[in-house]
Amino acid sequence: MRIEFYDTTLRDGAQAAGISYSLSDKRQIFGLLSSLGVDLIEGGDPASNPKDAEFFAECASSKLVAFGSTCRRGVPACEDDGLKKLAETGAGTVCIFGKTSVRHVEEVLKATKEENLRMIADSVRFLKERVGRVIFDAEHFYDGAEEDADYALQCLKAAAEAGADTVVLCDTNGGTFPERAYALTKTAVNAIPDVKIGVHFHNDAGTAVANSLAGVRAGATHVQGTFLGFGERCGNANLSTVIADLILKGGCDRTVDLSALTRTAHAVAEISNVKLDPAMPYVGAAAFAHKAGMHSDAVIKDPRTFEHVSPEEVGNRDSILLSEVAGRSAVAKKLETLFPSLDKSSPKTKEILDMIKLMELKGYQFEGADGSFVLLAEKMMNAFEPSFELEHYCIKAVKPDGVNTAEVAIRVGGEVTSVTETGNGPVNALDKALRAALAKHFPQIDEVVLTDYKVRVVDSSAATGAMVRVLITSSDKKETWTTVGVSTDIIEASWSALTDSFEYKLTGRGRIV
Amino acid sequence: MRIEFYDTTLRDGAQAAGISYSLSDKRQIFGLLSSLGVDLIEGGDPASNPKDAEFFAECASSKLVAFGSTCRRGVPACEDDGLKKLAETGAGTVCIFGKTSVRHVEEVLKATKEENLRMIADSVRFLKERVGRVIFDAEHFYDGAEEDADYALQCLKAAAEAGADTVVLCDTNGGTFPERAYALTKTAVNAIPDVKIGVHFHNDAGTAVANSLAGVRAGATHVQGTFLGFGERCGNANLSTVIADLILKGGCDRTVDLSALTRTAHAVAEISNVKLDPAMPYVGAAAFAHKAGMHSDAVIKDPRTFEHVSPEEVGNRDSILLSEVAGRSAVAKKLETLFPSLDKSSPKTKEILDMIKLMELKGYQFEGADGSFVLLAEKMMNAFEPSFELEHYCIKAVKPDGVNTAEVAIRVGGEVTSVTETGNGPVNALDKALRAALAKHFPQIDEVVLTDYKVRVVDSSAATGAMVRVLITSSDKKETWTTVGVSTDIIEASWSALTDSFEYKLTGRGRIV
Repeated sequence: MRIEFYDTTLRDGAQAAGISYSLSDKRQIFGLLSSLGVDLIEGGDPASNPKDAEFFAECASSKLVAFGSTCRRGVPACEDDGLKKLAETGAGTVCIFGKTSVRHVEEVLKATKEENLRMIADSVRFLKERVGRVIFDAEHFYDGAEEDADYALQCLKAAAEAGADTVVLCDTNGGTFPERAYALTKTAVNAIPDVKIGVHFHNDAGTAVANSLAGVRAGATHVQGTFLGFGERCGNANLSTVIADLILKGGCDRTVDLSALTRTAHAVAEISNVKLDPAMPYVGAAAFAHKAGMHSDAVIKDPRTFEHVSPEEVGNRDSILLSEVAGRSAVAKKLETLFPSLDKSSPKTKEILDMIKLMELKGYQFEGADGSFVLLAEKMMNAFEPSFELEHYCIKAVKPDGVNTAEVAIRVGGEVTSVTETGNGPVNALDKALRAALAKHFPQIDEVVLTDYKVRVVDSSAATGAMVRVLITSSDKKETWTTVGVSTDIIEASWSALTDSFEYKLTGRGRIV
Repeated sequence: MRIEFYDTTLRDGAQAAGISYSLSDKRQIFGLLSSLGVDLIEGGDPASNPKDAEFFAECASSKLVAFGSTCRRGVPACEDDGLKKLAETGAGTVCIFGKTSVRHVEEVLKATKEENLRMIADSVRFLKERVGRVIFDAEHFYDGAEEDADYALQCLKAAAEAGADTVVLCDTNGGTFPERAYALTKTAVNAIPDVKIGVHFHNDAGTAVANSLAGVRAGATHVQGTFLGFGERCGNANLSTVIADLILKGGCDRTVDLSALTRTAHAVAEISNVKLDPAMPYVGAAAFAHKAGMHSDAVIKDPRTFEHVSPEEVGNRDSILLSEVAGRSAVAKKLETLFPSLDKSSPKTKEILDMIKLMELKGYQFEGADGSFVLLAEKMMNAFEPSFELEHYCIKAVKPDGVNTAEVAIRVGGEVTSVTETGNGPVNALDKALRAALAKHFPQIDEVVLTDYKVRVVDSSAATGAMVRVLITSSDKKETWTTVGVSTDIIEASWSALTDSFEYKLTGRGRIV
């Protein structure tokens, strides 16, 4: 069975409290979900604000979907500004929502039932004449069908007859239980048998994933959700869970690269600046972690005893095995091009692994910081020769003048070089001064561009005294690498990630796995 | 329909990564769940350690359940130390688990199928002669029934015939889908019709809540879970969700004080030292939060439009999130206690909304920053009188000395106060210096504690020159508020969030929606 997966993290997900995406965030999440194999990715309403318009212009792709609503009450579709803009965005697929609940039509929209049917049909027809594929999101379908099933189905039929390629049944308030989700989806599948049926669930009763599975059992072949379950109120159906459930256990086609599922989930969480729930099914850091002694014992004997699927299938790992055998082989594997002599039983491999664990306890994170990982390994293999040393730095930030000055003095060979620069923040001033001092000795430093700078407060409850982790990504056009620094002092953490970045460029031993 | 709710936060919940309860934690959680109306509370194995023994002695109650396992292979129940201790704890109800899956019996237990049946029957009979009520947890029942339904049912019958009052079907690996949960529960209900049937689900497929509902539909009248879903791997069925689902929407008797549900959830999270997921159904801080302009509009007109139940029913409340997608009625609603004259059509309301949108474009985010929002609204209503003004600050950070100094000079009335402090980072030094300077004029500043500090690089691709957003949460025991600052300079962004926090405390106009 082929199920189409439709992600709305960038639109419905951004409705969650605390989630807000920049243009670059949207670009990155789109790229991640796209290469994972998600079929369609809703990007927002390109007509609503300049940020979304720029995103649609940049990320034009057959996977990208523009989102909007039906025409307004009393306005013909061809005169509706929103619809006109939607038709002009260049997106090959457009999704619009319309009402299917009598209560919503009469109380919120203040329209007649007939006018709502006209709005749906007219809007779908207008778009279908201008856009390749039209998806109709039937808002409040499940609640509407409980109130007045006949009218809810009339709304679906209006969309289908006007040419909608897909009709999506939405549980907008998220309160539906799986048996009702199944029964009402079945009714819709029977009512419009020639149109692809999709489902879109919210999690207000804690059943969004189960409802999505029930919808598919009832005949839906398109499932909407947000990749990590973000969304307004209690969130949307968690698409990463639904995908793994359906492919690994529901007999659906393997259209998604499940081996990248966990990695993608962590990257999306990082970009969203959200700590990924360690208990999230399949992808959470603890999803395959065993604590009870008896369970761990049994899992070492036979992982199937306490695991419903194998963690490797979804790119995750068993956390008991991680600490010993698998951990060491992972380290040896990662370093095999740099230090081919290392294998999983080398004492040095264990030393490096132990050091990583110790530093991760302090707040470091090497998973995304290969640059710092290489330098750490080189230091522990006594293969590291620093290109420069810090003599001192001195930062000054004065307000209201707004002047940020950094003086950096480094020693290269016997010579001390000192440079003072100003910047639009203390870290920027430090970056500029260090770069200028290094460039006097190493002209290749000019090739390095910092492409990404992230700050994460590791234990935010310690407030301004908390540990801070800085991740810097750098590129010299040939290669991209990420380095990490940790300190209670953001300037020191940034300094340490910066110096690792430049050291990596200067000592350059080439890429690792 | 009367459903018995059984909480195992103190035992299965404590298997979660990062959860560990002290004696006082256990006592508090027991008290909270008990007064909420949870029927049975599993407290652990009183025989396993002195902490649990003391807990059982202190909290003796008809709600408290002692947990253990069947006798060991080849040992008669009356000679099994574990069982003997379990019978002596004084708890009126004892729950023991035993195996029901042939694979587990043969591979993990290394016993014959007959010996496993003997262990179950013998243990249940032994306990039933000594304890008021015996509950039998049928481990791996759902997986076992898929492998060999006949044997799995024989295990249930063995427990029932030996006198078990309740037989609980466990989905120990958490991979069961709701339709199988329903079918297999039904089979068990039919097989042992005279015994109370319970269900116990784990969430590895994201369906634990739905499975619990399916179990009840199939005839189970006892549901086990952990109050906030904590548990090994992906956690257990979230009991707070299941309780609300069943009572509010499943037609079950109102045996739990739902009006205390949210309060209890927050207290349990606090004691567990876990940040409660804001999206958790019914009890999360964002469970009834509305962000999209159209949704907030509709909810203000009629809450049922986008809420499946009323937040008051579970002791939670509605909130309107401010964001670039919010509308004028959201702003007016939020300010109704502060500025009752504002409504959706006031020109000032539009001005405030426009200013919010403009600032959000620059990187501000007000939806989580009510403190800064109130100050902004007061400024725009010409109702703001600053308590202090910045004369200047000067930050110095020197490495390798590692000294961070902040000098802050503020003007209060005509007087300039200057304080210099050191800190473990420049922001910490700034915080200390500003606080010390303010405290000379406003002793109430000492009541303010910063409880959370978050940093987000808004467009990280601008690297060290990027815009940075700082969110600070403060508390004075009576109230908690969050403030926001944005700048390319992390020190300036922190300064602006800090001053807003202190200003909010000093001008204090009270809570908003």
